[in-house]
Parts: sequence; C-alpha cells; structure tokens
Amino acid sequence: MTGKFYIIGVGPGDPELMTQKAARLLKECRVICVPKGSKAGKSVALSIVKQVVSMENKEILEIHFPMEKVKMDDKQSPMLKKAWLAAAGTVIEKLAKGDDLAFPTLGDPTFYSTAFHLAGVLPEVLPAGSKDVSVVVVPGVTSVSASAAAAGMPLCLGDERVAVLPATYEKERLLEALSSFDTVVLMKVHNVLDKIILMLKNLGLLNTSIIIEKAGMSGERVIKASNAHKEKLHYFSTMIVRKKL
Amino acid sequence: MTGKFYIIGVGPGDPELMTQKAARLLKECRVICVPKGSKAGKSVALSIVKQVVSMENKEILEIHFPMEKVKMDDKQSPMLKKAWLAAAGTVIEKLAKGDDLAFPTLGDPTFYSTAFHLAGVLPEVLPAGSKDVSVVVVPGVTSVSASAAAAGMPLCLGDERVAVLPATYEKERLLEALSSFDTVVLMKVHNVLDKIILMLKNLGLLNTSIIIEKAGMSGERVIKASNAHKEKLHYFSTMIVRKKL
Repeated sequence: MTGKFYIIGVGPGDPELMTQKAARLLKECRVICVPKGSKAGKSVALSIVKQVVSMENKEILEIHFPMEKVKMDDKQSPMLKKAWLAAAGTVIEKLAKGDDLAFPTLGDPTFYSTAFHLAGVLPEVLPAGSKDVSVVVVPGVTSVSASAAAAGMPLCLGDERVAVLPATYEKERLLEALSSFDTVVLMKVHNVLDKIILMLKNLGLLNTSIIIEKAGMSGERVIKASNAHKEKLHYFSTMIVRKKL
Repeated sequence: MTGKFYIIGVGPGDPELMTQKAARLLKECRVICVPKGSKAGKSVALSIVKQVVSMENKEILEIHFPMEKVKMDDKQSPMLKKAWLAAAGTVIEKLAKGDDLAFPTLGDPTFYSTAFHLAGVLPEVLPAGSKDVSVVVVPGVTSVSASAAAAGMPLCLGDERVAVLPATYEKERLLEALSSFDTVVLMKVHNVLDKIILMLKNLGLLNTSIIIEKAGMSGERVIKASNAHKEKLHYFSTMIVRKKL
C-alpha cells in the first residue's frame, strides 16, 4: 500500500477550530472519504472541511457505512462485519493506486468516531503480497472541550476526576458516576432530558449543571439545566454536571 | 474594561495541532501572559506559541502564579487567594488600558488549566465603576486525544464510557474506575508507574494498557504497559486502559 489513510478530526463545527495540521492534510489528500447516506454528524464534517479547503480537483469517495447502531460488540455481527469489509475494500483499492485518503470526522476521531470500525478491518482486506496499511490519526478539538469553553468553565482542575458517558445509560450507572466524579459529562442528552433533570434535582446538582447546544457551531447556546425543562434540544447537546462551580 | 482576556488552548505540543483560531488570536493580542517562574507545562505553552506567532511588537507579561499545588479547595486558602488577587490585578490593569490579553495554555484550557483560577478572581479586582470583564475561552486539542491518536486507538466507541483521573489517586478510587468504565485515562502516571502496573496485572488489564509519553510533542513514544516496568517516564506521560482493544 503506497497511499496513507488519514482519520482527521475537524473540530466541533467552527471552521477556525480546525487545527492547522488538519487543514494542511485535507488540502494535500486528493480523495476525501465520506459515509454514504450519512447521519447528521458525518455530513457536518464535510461541510466544515468545505469552508476551509477547496474541493476543486478533489474526489469525494462515498463509502457505504452500516447504518445500524454501533454497539461494543458490533464487530462480531456477521452482517455488520460484511458491510465494514466492503467499505474497507473501497478504501484499499484507492490506497493501492497510491492515493492518500482523508476521512474527516466531527470533533476528535478518538472520541466516538466510527472511523475506527473502518480502520480496524483494513488489514483484513489487503491484497496478497501487501504488507501493511498506514493509518494516521490526527486529533481534533472535542465537542466536550468546546462545550466547557462556551460555558466559560473548566471541566477539571487540580486533581479532579472527569467521567464522560451517554445520558441514555441506565439510572444506576448514571448515579454511580454522579456520586464518584467531580465532573460528569453527559452526551446525547436531548432525548432523555426530563429524566436527567429529575435525577439531578433529587441529587441537589441541578443548579451546577449546564447544557451546551451545538457547541462550537453556529447557533451555539448555553442553557442552565434548571431552566431547561421545557427546551427542545438539538441532537448536538451536551450536559456538564460540575459539582464545584 | 475595554480589553478582552483570552484563555487559549495551544494544543499538546506540535505547533500544527494549534487551531487556526488560536493562531489568529495569538497574532492579534498585543500582550501575551505567562506565569512567572512557571513549571514545565506553562513555559511549554509559550514555546509552542513562538513557533507559530512572531513575538515582535508583543509584550510578554509575566504574572506571578502561586506555586503551591492546586487542590479543589485552594481558593479558600487566604495566602493563595491573595496571590491570585495580585495576579488578577496585573491583568485588569492592562485590560483597563484597552489591551487584549492572551493567556496560552498547553492542550485545552478546560482540562486542568490553572488559568481558570486567575479568571475566577478577575471580577473581584475590577476598579469602581467597571461593570464586567470579558473572558473568552478558546478550546484546544487535549493531550488525551493526542495520546489516543498517537496509539492509533479510539478512546471510546458507540455507547462506551470514559473516565479521566490522576494516576496518583487512592487505590480504591482507581479500582472503582477500572471496574466501571470501558476506558480509563490515567494522568501523571510517571511517579506511580510500578504501583499502577501491579494493579493492572492483578486485574488482567495489563495487556490492553498503553502509555504515551510526550503525546503530540517531539520525542513522542507509545509504550505497551506490559513493557514499561523499567521505563523512566517523562512528566508528560498518560496511560490509556481500554478494556476492548
């Protein structure tokens, strides 16, 4: 394989929050991969890229990504595995021709990006005689950092501890995290807002909790959790529960 | 106050991992604040800035930061509070003259940056008649994201949960996090490496644990925890314990 596969974090939304490295590599790569029939998060990544990098002379390679919800053991599901292998085959074909491929991801790739499912199966579809495939991960600004920055608050100071987990987790697990950690970041809070607000109220944590909608994007809003019970939140909403304000 | 106080994340070390926003604001601000007699982390921030922004026509404002270890309740210590108030006074003096001040911090400011101690006391030293002080936080790439990227691994996928805590925490707290979370990031691992390695060995987690030394900096190294028992690690070392590799 002569080409390299770059998984590139483009930051939370504001094109200026893209790193200089991401901008350079996205300019240099001839082929930009995007998921076909992608959900919100993925097409947003491309729209951020377009604000920084000219698409002239670029090839946009649409890859079919499995649409099923990705769970921890999804790689074991034969149908999903087959879909990932097919996607990997498309990427390997380009790399074999010497093209460098860039896969832009919203925020930071190491943080909940499905790009790793794809990267994980690339070695399995190498043509006979090829030794290895070069995958380079370029970190970016996470929506969590952008959320805390928008609220003008630290996530952690000194020797504090931080937990990040989906707000959709079972109640006992949420309570466990809320009791043990100085700061708890709840992702995907939009669908379970009422439940979470009630829980925080019971724990006496409602007044130190903040919701950031579309952090680092246009339309960004910082909302006190105590005022949020009637809000209809966007999919890109994060809650920060910080015990010490 | 006519000037603004910018707390700017400059990323983990590689100047290219600075965001375009950070680079622009650091160019625009006439005064760059750095801690006087600073420890490693803070002077590194300035050295990163210097690789991207010309220091010609800039004023470097050295601020005396309390050197004592910052703990959660430090703001309550009268001596520390006095030192922070003095530092805040120096900043406010400049802001009152209409200067914009930039305070560069290594990585991401919301993630363990003492800049928030300073920002927190600015409102207390406003001159009579001044209404408010404008603090803007610009997020950056954390050393945690850079560490996972260097190791070519995700921190989390799907609905996984991540905990970040200092490796120096008491054993019970570490065990609690290691048992509950899919990924545990241990900061400041260099001084307690042997203890942590023994703990991971007993938990059967040693083979899925990785240490990243100087992530995103020159001299970056990725070390398997199972090979690390005789290593002398740099202060900038992070361990990622990920149960599922």
